[in-house]
Amino acid sequence: MVKIILSGCNGRMGKVISKLANTIEDVSIVAGIDRNTEKSNYPIFASISDCNISADVILDFSRPDALDSLIEYGKENNIGIVFCTTGYSDEQIKKINDLSKILPIFRSANMSIGINVVNNILKNISSLLYKNFDIEIVEKHHNQKVDSPSGTAILLADTIKDTIPDNIEFVNGREGIKKRVHNEIGIHSIRGGSIVGEHEILFAGQGETIEIKHTAISREVFAIGALKACEFMYKKNAGLYNMDNVISNDN
Amino acid sequence: MVKIILSGCNGRMGKVISKLANTIEDVSIVAGIDRNTEKSNYPIFASISDCNISADVILDFSRPDALDSLIEYGKENNIGIVFCTTGYSDEQIKKINDLSKILPIFRSANMSIGINVVNNILKNISSLLYKNFDIEIVEKHHNQKVDSPSGTAILLADTIKDTIPDNIEFVNGREGIKKRVHNEIGIHSIRGGSIVGEHEILFAGQGETIEIKHTAISREVFAIGALKACEFMYKKNAGLYNMDNVISNDN
Amino acid sequence: MVKIILSGCNGRMGKVISKLANTIEDVSIVAGIDRNTEKSNYPIFASISDCNISADVILDFSRPDALDSLIEYGKENNIGIVFCTTGYSDEQIKKINDLSKILPIFRSANMSIGINVVNNILKNISSLLYKNFDIEIVEKHHNQKVDSPSGTAILLADTIKDTIPDNIEFVNGREGIKKRVHNEIGIHSIRGGSIVGEHEILFAGQGETIEIKHTAISREVFAIGALKACEFMYKKNAGLYNMDNVISNDN
Amino acid sequence: MVKIILSGCNGRMGKVISKLANTIEDVSIVAGIDRNTEKSNYPIFASISDCNISADVILDFSRPDALDSLIEYGKENNIGIVFCTTGYSDEQIKKINDLSKILPIFRSANMSIGINVVNNILKNISSLLYKNFDIEIVEKHHNQKVDSPSGTAILLADTIKDTIPDNIEFVNGREGIKKRVHNEIGIHSIRGGSIVGEHEILFAGQGETIEIKHTAISREVFAIGALKACEFMYKKNAGLYNMDNVISNDN
Repeated sequence: MVKIILSGCNGRMGKVISKLANTIEDVSIVAGIDRNTEKSNYPIFASISDCNISADVILDFSRPDALDSLIEYGKENNIGIVFCTTGYSDEQIKKINDLSKILPIFRSANMSIGINVVNNILKNISSLLYKNFDIEIVEKHHNQKVDSPSGTAILLADTIKDTIPDNIEFVNGREGIKKRVHNEIGIHSIRGGSIVGEHEILFAGQGETIEIKHTAISREVFAIGALKACEFMYKKNAGLYNMDNVISNDN
Repeated sequence: MVKIILSGCNGRMGKVISKLANTIEDVSIVAGIDRNTEKSNYPIFASISDCNISADVILDFSRPDALDSLIEYGKENNIGIVFCTTGYSDEQIKKINDLSKILPIFRSANMSIGINVVNNILKNISSLLYKNFDIEIVEKHHNQKVDSPSGTAILLADTIKDTIPDNIEFVNGREGIKKRVHNEIGIHSIRGGSIVGEHEILFAGQGETIEIKHTAISREVFAIGALKACEFMYKKNAGLYNMDNVISNDN
Repeated sequence: MVKIILSGCNGRMGKVISKLANTIEDVSIVAGIDRNTEKSNYPIFASISDCNISADVILDFSRPDALDSLIEYGKENNIGIVFCTTGYSDEQIKKINDLSKILPIFRSANMSIGINVVNNILKNISSLLYKNFDIEIVEKHHNQKVDSPSGTAILLADTIKDTIPDNIEFVNGREGIKKRVHNEIGIHSIRGGSIVGEHEILFAGQGETIEIKHTAISREVFAIGALKACEFMYKKNAGLYNMDNVISNDN
Repeated sequence: MVKIILSGCNGRMGKVISKLANTIEDVSIVAGIDRNTEKSNYPIFASISDCNISADVILDFSRPDALDSLIEYGKENNIGIVFCTTGYSDEQIKKINDLSKILPIFRSANMSIGINVVNNILKNISSLLYKNFDIEIVEKHHNQKVDSPSGTAILLADTIKDTIPDNIEFVNGREGIKKRVHNEIGIHSIRGGSIVGEHEILFAGQGETIEIKHTAISREVFAIGALKACEFMYKKNAGLYNMDNVISNDN
């Protein structure tokens, strides 16, 4: 049983995690941290400095400005941290990396196991296929999403670009009279209804195509990844871990 | 057995049709018209005015500037025409429509049976679904295609727009920070490898999606539609026919 | 504002509907009926005969054996009923049909708008395409589903069969050395993970395919359909209504 | 320029390869072997023992019973062989393997680059994902295919089975009341129209799915793979090579 302090427990993802944690035997949320301290089935503290409950790991889905208090608490209590908050500055990321020298620290750009597996496939096959295949990315999300392309589409596109020794250029949509050039990667953002999230990478060659597609069925998938990360972090040594470590270990 | 004069018989589509016609019992190409009169298993004339072979219908896959000679030949020999050539001017289309008052004339924007069925589905469901569903179009073609979106994607988008009593706007690709508005239809042009042609229309609602997808497996599909149109035109009265007539009749 | 008595309010779908109804302005659940009368934001009665709260329509997601008490209550209070319960006997269905002569009654095999639209498309195109296209159905559901094929797949397959004047036979999966015959419809049941529900109908012809696909993103979609049915039923005359009426009206 | 003797040059795949070879600069078919010696743009011999034209490699798309004559010719002329013929007995396969000790020999179960890449992906991810994901395979082919599942589906399924330390069982289609068990892999064979060949592997987990899909657009894709194999074999040392070697080298 891994005991977790959930930072940001009354945020949108915090609530999904609380609900999911109730259904999983191997983890238990023993305390929550949130400005909003409304009742739950565990005690909630407005600030982590007030938390007097011992735990195995901190799971953070709060805001970047909570970073310093988390670092301080982690050092004082010798407890590892799973950082799922996004939007950190470069300076803050440096602080997190520094912290990993003395504490077990986890940080990943996307908490879904599936997206990380897809990302690893792309690392393996993109440069191999590039000579003979054109590469395009299609992503679909709900109609309330404001940014195009999605952060995950950019993550996957960057992975592909990094493995190919050619000057890759991203193209967001196409219009007019212009033939495709081989070193471009088209990225296409479909928006509609309540689609949770789909990412498809197309490799189109002479006479054949390969498609790799990830579909998020519910937001729960990020909660599952986060709790798996917490389980993985149980009694780990100091160091910087990410979703790849969880996936290799999970087997 | 429907006897066909194939105008444009040595063009790309002409050759596909010649090859296919050999495998179909109910049709026979009895003469070809083409500037290039290289040998075939039927006689080829450089100009239709030279053609002295009797037939049931003319199948035209040539160029817009051949129109006048086709009209003249049709009138003189009292023979119907299936026009598959694209790029006619408004004035030329008027001439074709006028001709249909005295001869059986066929003309369709897309010769594939499947695309015409999909287009009819869109006529039926688009206005019904529009209130609760967002609409997006995704089309995929080979990397040598120069125009985006495809002519067929525009045809389908126009069909949807025409059925909806709202100010529909087409959006070709998305980039940046901007939430989708309901009256936009996103059109996305994927290009790669040797993909023959795919068109997918997505209706995305609250909690559910409907996708209607057409895939052309080979260019033969347009030849099949053209030969079916020729069969359909056998001994028809004067009038203007299109693929919808073929589809209803085919059953 | 349509006032609803929700029969079966503490069942799985009852809870989804209660939650969703809170977010929709035009409907209000004014009473619930359930053996389990645990607290809610509306009064709950163990039996509908105890309910003394006036409403516009009864929405039923309970069990077949509650039918007689619902009919009696409907007659006494002159209130229409939306039946979403499944598993009725032929005799019970006759009772419901009889009731529709004196009260507005709603009953549909599937409460999702999308599935009903897809079903209508199949009614329109199946016989038209059958001559030249092979038809196959692929459905995907989560790994806890016990029945294959899904009820909705059977509904769609029956719709296709009913429109085709040929002896259609259903084939559940294929194995061994045996060529497809044209009058068979292959039905394929994929099971895995937490997939909510996908139904795809494939029309495969010479050189082209048409695919019609419905995806349920969440179970909420059936709740949305049920509440739309309630809105539709407001102040309707006696008669038997179904999802098609809601869809045509919704526009 | 790699000079090729094409064994089985007037068979179905032989003709596709001849046509394709004309469009590729780096290869040239210098002689053909076929019982049917009808004219071509290269000399054709009824038996390879009659062939007096020097070449770099033999590409074989003939029949298993031609094996002995190919081996004899290869030894006498010190020329490597790319075997694309299928249906060899175990004894014949042993002969091929023995031959690879003295000549460069190529043999692969599927000549498409894409299927080999997909197969390698499955080798890498299947055991990793198996704990948390259910695995299903869906393949689509034309309505003239007699065997279900396809040979390639079986190849992919075997690859998955071999990487998982559990007792995997294959299930061809589903019908009736029976919940999925985790160690089964459902294999589903869709047949219709003129579909060239699609193979999709679904990994379905809690809240997410990964799909890996290969689509053959035309039979040319196997010809492309075969000619790439010939290029790869140019001046190779004795040894047994397969498509993985071509793919790694191609980059």
